[in-house]
Amino acid sequence: MAEKLIGSAIFGQSGGPTSVINSSAYGVIRTALDSDEITNVYGAENGIIGVLNDRLFDMSKEDADELLLLVNTPSSELGSCRYKIADPDEDDTDYKKILKVFKKYNVRYFFYNGGNDSMDTCNKIYRYMKKVGYECRVIGVPKTIDNDLSGTDHCPGYGSAAKYIATSCMEVSKDNKVYTTDNITVMEIMGRHAGWLTAASVLASDKGEGPDLIYLPETDFDLDQFFDDVQKVHEKKGDVFIAVSEGIHYDNGRFVAEVQTSTTDGFGHAQLGGVANYLGGLLKARTGIKTRAIELSLLQRSAAHMASKTDIEEAIEAGKFAVKSALAGKTGRMVAFERDPDSTSYKCKMILVPLSEAANAEKKVPREWINKRGNFVNKEFLDYALPLIQGEPVRYFEDSLPRYARLKKVIAEK
Amino acid sequence: MAEKLIGSAIFGQSGGPTSVINSSAYGVIRTALDSDEITNVYGAENGIIGVLNDRLFDMSKEDADELLLLVNTPSSELGSCRYKIADPDEDDTDYKKILKVFKKYNVRYFFYNGGNDSMDTCNKIYRYMKKVGYECRVIGVPKTIDNDLSGTDHCPGYGSAAKYIATSCMEVSKDNKVYTTDNITVMEIMGRHAGWLTAASVLASDKGEGPDLIYLPETDFDLDQFFDDVQKVHEKKGDVFIAVSEGIHYDNGRFVAEVQTSTTDGFGHAQLGGVANYLGGLLKARTGIKTRAIELSLLQRSAAHMASKTDIEEAIEAGKFAVKSALAGKTGRMVAFERDPDSTSYKCKMILVPLSEAANAEKKVPREWINKRGNFVNKEFLDYALPLIQGEPVRYFEDSLPRYARLKKVIAEK
Repeated sequence: MAEKLIGSAIFGQSGGPTSVINSSAYGVIRTALDSDEITNVYGAENGIIGVLNDRLFDMSKEDADELLLLVNTPSSELGSCRYKIADPDEDDTDYKKILKVFKKYNVRYFFYNGGNDSMDTCNKIYRYMKKVGYECRVIGVPKTIDNDLSGTDHCPGYGSAAKYIATSCMEVSKDNKVYTTDNITVMEIMGRHAGWLTAASVLASDKGEGPDLIYLPETDFDLDQFFDDVQKVHEKKGDVFIAVSEGIHYDNGRFVAEVQTSTTDGFGHAQLGGVANYLGGLLKARTGIKTRAIELSLLQRSAAHMASKTDIEEAIEAGKFAVKSALAGKTGRMVAFERDPDSTSYKCKMILVPLSEAANAEKKVPREWINKRGNFVNKEFLDYALPLIQGEPVRYFEDSLPRYARLKKVIAEK
Repeated sequence: MAEKLIGSAIFGQSGGPTSVINSSAYGVIRTALDSDEITNVYGAENGIIGVLNDRLFDMSKEDADELLLLVNTPSSELGSCRYKIADPDEDDTDYKKILKVFKKYNVRYFFYNGGNDSMDTCNKIYRYMKKVGYECRVIGVPKTIDNDLSGTDHCPGYGSAAKYIATSCMEVSKDNKVYTTDNITVMEIMGRHAGWLTAASVLASDKGEGPDLIYLPETDFDLDQFFDDVQKVHEKKGDVFIAVSEGIHYDNGRFVAEVQTSTTDGFGHAQLGGVANYLGGLLKARTGIKTRAIELSLLQRSAAHMASKTDIEEAIEAGKFAVKSALAGKTGRMVAFERDPDSTSYKCKMILVPLSEAANAEKKVPREWINKRGNFVNKEFLDYALPLIQGEPVRYFEDSLPRYARLKKVIAEK
């Protein structure tokens, strides 16, 4: 048994939002509020920025029912940030500010919910507090739709995004087939360096209603081969449905979407728009076939209305586990999921991994889960991803629109 | 009582798909299959093209359970078309072919499901059959996400698209607010000449989670005023969320998106992309604020996963009513919805209107439902649209993805 540590807790959200980051928020906040050792529970406004600016929400002021609605509320309800914190050994300015706030509120528990960069921040704070001898237990809670965190089988947020992407692919695929005239659809899915999200489109293909071609950043993109691939599908099926990661790149490492940046409109202004627009334009010019570019954009990371029940439940549990682990004396760790490789059905348990492990390398889709030609995804991926999208959560509506949490966000005063 | 007319029925789908056009298909097909007077029920492959090519599916060969799944299946399951049929008084080539097929299968009932152009096709077939003295009862079933059909309070398909749009706006709005840095989001919503779909974004704003500015094609778009509007919201709120119809235009009638067509990429190829990309690029260049363009594209007309129960039920009922009306001797009519203006709660009944009425003018959002400055939508619109998105349908899943109808589509032989 760890020694009892009495004090406050801060919870912060960081990086890009997901459909279930607030589910983890609920897991942390509810468990912390219910703990006897945690005296006060604060939510940091915009992650670590809220700590630096002493902008903390007193979570005890919230209605329990509204807190519970966090479970189905997309985006980062407390606000997020992309703040790059210095290495404490090089510049400890920020850390002194953080320490001051920690002391002011007697913060002894720090929970940070995010992806690679956020775990890096979390790890640096852990190291600094240890160095200066301030007792504080620091636990990271994983989150990213990108699913690229090391040390964990998968990340909360991914399953719901994957489910939305697969569903949208099924619907668009059905739409594509209605006319007698052929058409090409290029769908752009998030993922700068890892193709987990784009690969999820194969869940739709598996039902006969998804992309014919899938390109991930894990392989080099070749324009000639691409044209050839499209041509072959066109000859066989007429309509062509293509899923591409935003981060596909040539063998020289240059992003395919980078060409876009030189594009200007009639006024000489840079155009927004990504790789689907670009490839769609090329295909249209080359084939003359009606071509449509669809970018799932922010929708894929905020579509809580199509969330996976498994994902939501795991996100809540990850939050709970973070608090319980800290209460049990753990620190400098991130919650991770470990899948039982021997179980025929999906079975995951939660473990703790060093923050430093999670803060490092991006986890990519294994090359052997992608076909040899690099234009589709294999069954290994399907077996991996399918369990993560399972189940339909209870949904809350108001006027038949989603009813999201409405927090009071009362700033803590001391 | 009308004279009993014994013979076959053809049902066809035409124009752009919706989330609930197959619900109407179910309504027509099921009711026709159950009728004693209708001897055979055929589904035309790709609408009127299937009739012209004698490609008819024998709907009696389908499993009842799969037919029922049509109720939740997006897109036009029998295939659609955008075939422009000649005026029978000028060129009766197609009509002779149609008559031949009608005679071959003893078709005495023709049901056509679509928007303005489809009702025009339907009306021409009705007129021709009447002229040549071939007895056939012709009824149109309304459908369009655009909601621009005359003669009806609203169109099946609109409510579900509106619900998806509002939900997506809520989710994107939440996502937009998470960072401390300001951003501008421009969301492009379908609607070339009528702003019904874009106006639906106000359902989200009404919950505090939608666009700040809404521009419809019903008013002239002015770029200077637009910049001014954005600037004002930015000063007040920081983040700016803008919804625009794809069809917004300047006072000279020129589409704002038309400028796009002159845009080329580095290879000299025309770029795909619409008005959101264009305005986003202008705003980014002008303000330097992070700007994002989102185009809902095909998603908004195929997102059956977020369908309105009211819409689905009305779509089914419209199909049923079409068949029952034809059996009762009606012809040359379209099913329409009439809202009870005296009822405090939403109450609609079905009526029949002449096909010629529906085939004509596009119905637009009344000017008085839009604010004076033309950058937002009034409460009148909200009161109109809210009832149409109500209710959550039962959803069918397979592996936690939507389970759509899988029809055999057996070609009828005779």
